[in-house]
Amino acid sequence: MRLTRIAEITGGKLINLKDDIDIRSLSSLEGAEEGDLTFVSGKKFLNLVYKTKASAIITGKELDIDKPQIIVDKPDQVFYELIKVFYPDEEVKGQISETAVIGKDVSIGEDVYIGDYVVIQDGVKIGRGTKIYPFSFIGKNCVIGEDTVIYPRVTLYPDVVLGKRVIIHSGVVIGSDGFGYYQKDGKHIKIKHVGKVIIEDDVEIGANTTIDRAMIDKTVIGKGTKIDNLVMVAHNCQIGENCIILAQVGMAGSGRIGKNVILAGQVGVADHINIGDNVIVIGKSSVPKDLPSNGVYGSSIPAMEWNKWKRILAYLSKLPDILKKFKS
Amino acid sequence: MRLTRIAEITGGKLINLKDDIDIRSLSSLEGAEEGDLTFVSGKKFLNLVYKTKASAIITGKELDIDKPQIIVDKPDQVFYELIKVFYPDEEVKGQISETAVIGKDVSIGEDVYIGDYVVIQDGVKIGRGTKIYPFSFIGKNCVIGEDTVIYPRVTLYPDVVLGKRVIIHSGVVIGSDGFGYYQKDGKHIKIKHVGKVIIEDDVEIGANTTIDRAMIDKTVIGKGTKIDNLVMVAHNCQIGENCIILAQVGMAGSGRIGKNVILAGQVGVADHINIGDNVIVIGKSSVPKDLPSNGVYGSSIPAMEWNKWKRILAYLSKLPDILKKFKS
Amino acid sequence: MRLTRIAEITGGKLINLKDDIDIRSLSSLEGAEEGDLTFVSGKKFLNLVYKTKASAIITGKELDIDKPQIIVDKPDQVFYELIKVFYPDEEVKGQISETAVIGKDVSIGEDVYIGDYVVIQDGVKIGRGTKIYPFSFIGKNCVIGEDTVIYPRVTLYPDVVLGKRVIIHSGVVIGSDGFGYYQKDGKHIKIKHVGKVIIEDDVEIGANTTIDRAMIDKTVIGKGTKIDNLVMVAHNCQIGENCIILAQVGMAGSGRIGKNVILAGQVGVADHINIGDNVIVIGKSSVPKDLPSNGVYGSSIPAMEWNKWKRILAYLSKLPDILKKFKS
Repeated sequence: MRLTRIAEITGGKLINLKDDIDIRSLSSLEGAEEGDLTFVSGKKFLNLVYKTKASAIITGKELDIDKPQIIVDKPDQVFYELIKVFYPDEEVKGQISETAVIGKDVSIGEDVYIGDYVVIQDGVKIGRGTKIYPFSFIGKNCVIGEDTVIYPRVTLYPDVVLGKRVIIHSGVVIGSDGFGYYQKDGKHIKIKHVGKVIIEDDVEIGANTTIDRAMIDKTVIGKGTKIDNLVMVAHNCQIGENCIILAQVGMAGSGRIGKNVILAGQVGVADHINIGDNVIVIGKSSVPKDLPSNGVYGSSIPAMEWNKWKRILAYLSKLPDILKKFKS
Repeated sequence: MRLTRIAEITGGKLINLKDDIDIRSLSSLEGAEEGDLTFVSGKKFLNLVYKTKASAIITGKELDIDKPQIIVDKPDQVFYELIKVFYPDEEVKGQISETAVIGKDVSIGEDVYIGDYVVIQDGVKIGRGTKIYPFSFIGKNCVIGEDTVIYPRVTLYPDVVLGKRVIIHSGVVIGSDGFGYYQKDGKHIKIKHVGKVIIEDDVEIGANTTIDRAMIDKTVIGKGTKIDNLVMVAHNCQIGENCIILAQVGMAGSGRIGKNVILAGQVGVADHINIGDNVIVIGKSSVPKDLPSNGVYGSSIPAMEWNKWKRILAYLSKLPDILKKFKS
Repeated sequence: MRLTRIAEITGGKLINLKDDIDIRSLSSLEGAEEGDLTFVSGKKFLNLVYKTKASAIITGKELDIDKPQIIVDKPDQVFYELIKVFYPDEEVKGQISETAVIGKDVSIGEDVYIGDYVVIQDGVKIGRGTKIYPFSFIGKNCVIGEDTVIYPRVTLYPDVVLGKRVIIHSGVVIGSDGFGYYQKDGKHIKIKHVGKVIIEDDVEIGANTTIDRAMIDKTVIGKGTKIDNLVMVAHNCQIGENCIILAQVGMAGSGRIGKNVILAGQVGVADHINIGDNVIVIGKSSVPKDLPSNGVYGSSIPAMEWNKWKRILAYLSKLPDILKKFKS
């Protein structure tokens, strides 16, 4: 695509262009080769501008280099939108593979794609335009909305409800039994889990994440919330709208999380915890108590030289005794 | 079901009932609607009793509300047992799908269910009443006990042994190679893993958990132990009976864990660690050293306001120097 | 196999043997029974030597016990190499199952094994001698090198490149979309991910690990690097050669890791972090800042008695105030 045409699409101001050039592909500052268009956003990466091999740059401010530049308000967003132009989605036709096993009383909307070796049990409803890729298992009476994508090797246990435009990545398990037992004669007796899982519209769930069904009532992932890979959401959790749950976060049973919450990677939330709206929890932190709305919380320690940290640990262990002595 | 009939089943004392009522379903205090039966257990939830829409409540002590109440010793357990009455297990008939691929010398007991697209390799033995759901792979010479359930998309590598009444959730991998290498000429040379995995009777294993095979000898999960989702049990670990291993726990190689141990969520146990009986490890703690029996251990820090925690971190980093100065 | 023959193979010195004996199998010191050969390496396990039931021992130094001993320089390595002699790899013949679904323009080398219920999309290239086990999904235009093994239930999204002699364990997902969104009108808008994943030669990837595709450019796992189970490698990470990434490690987006790095279990690395060569990060540590080459880093706290740790926590929380008072 000609650079002048790209500038038009972005609505930006094109400078430093002598003869129009063809843009071969989009790339990062570091990964770019000749013929590529790249972008810079934020001061952190400005030093890479001088080294990049890209033939043109999208930027928020004019750069003191000779290369053609497209100047726009939000260079990162403009670039993200160009990705969709350069790499349009491949059309997947509505079609049901002959190797798919479809149960009784299954309702399938128009233009639904069901790939090879999909198993759909009785009573499932699938909305128009939804795609289900190979080796996915859709349990009894699941309800799947329109324009949803289920990548290969996903398991929905029975009675799971997915909204519209939901994206479920490979390896995800939704609706497995919650981890609940009671003690009797020194043994753990399984509590039967008969609740539901509701995944609302526009949710995305990353690879190999697991979301357990409620004991009774429901586990809920709110509209527009995005969940990364290898996350654990336990039984009866209710996560609000537009949250961001990063990789390897674990939420124990019956947690309540408000809107616009960010749980960074590897955060752990204890059971029956309430977290308000607009809360950010820093990566690797532990949340054993409720957190009110509108704050940034954390408890992680940055790695330092191990020998230095071992000295700190030694003092930490003696801290109560030392401070008592000082007091007296 | 009539409330008087439910009270009979529970053996509890029914009070405040004027005319008998029909109970539509079971629910939590918060999620209940009219026609539901709920329960309250522990002081923490007593305040919800006044707001619940449930038509009747199972409780340990008489509540000062007008609603019908069933008074029993252990309201939670009574409720859990009622779940089984209200939602009986669906009968799954013994049957082998035509799309299952079954190897040579496979022995299959009575009333075994093998779903669509299951692959069972040569020499496998499957006990009476066991159920194996679609897309599960059972490697050579695995032995599976009676009344065991293998949910969709489970992998048993060869030579895995499962006991009776074991439950394996979707996405679990048992018997993958342990993570063992030795160094030679600056490269990591793979150590061949030829040991077994033994899962004893009444074990339950949560979604997407992985349990590696032993290098030699065996990896063992003891009778009645329950393992949550996304847990890692490395090669040659031996976990005792009736343990509770919560989500995202990681155990490195050759760990030994006694009986009735609880490892809470995201705990990490280093390699070659011994943990005694009746030990509780608090969530997100690190276990780099042996832990004797009968204690509660931990090392996690509760998340607090990030700005406050950053101040503490700054002092923590200077702790050895500050305390040395004070001493002199 | 006769012990004298085993001694020959190892090149070691055989002592204490009266009559030659048959070795039934290889075992650990603890797990051994009569007829087994075991080994001891390091002082930590010397005390087990007196209790083992093994009939012979491989050792670095002569032991003061009567049993036959094979004395070699590196007893552990010698033992690991004997495992391959005692338990030779089973031959898996090149063969393509009739139940495999193979797309258009797929190129398959000699002696390739493709198991039951494998789905291979259009344009895939598979090198000589590679094995792909049941229920694996190979997306469009993936390129797989020679002598690579893909265990059951693996997902390669489109355009993933695997080198030679790569081993991918069950449940692994490679090439799922990176976790990237931008904000617009209070919603998270998905950034399309069109980059690649390159897995270089001799890499091994453990069960249920996930590796995301790059937004643009590529995610790279360097030659000879070994990754354990349940690890998360986010979009655009580049990991160098011969690294060891242990279970449940999480790396956020765009990380750069040098050669010969060891990240121990449950380590978390923030986004855009650079780690040099020959770095070791202790298990459960948090890495929010760059780490230079050639060091050992950490921030994990060993679990101690929970009551003791709670006292420390109480002081920790007041640390800034207490130390300020002392200063004044």
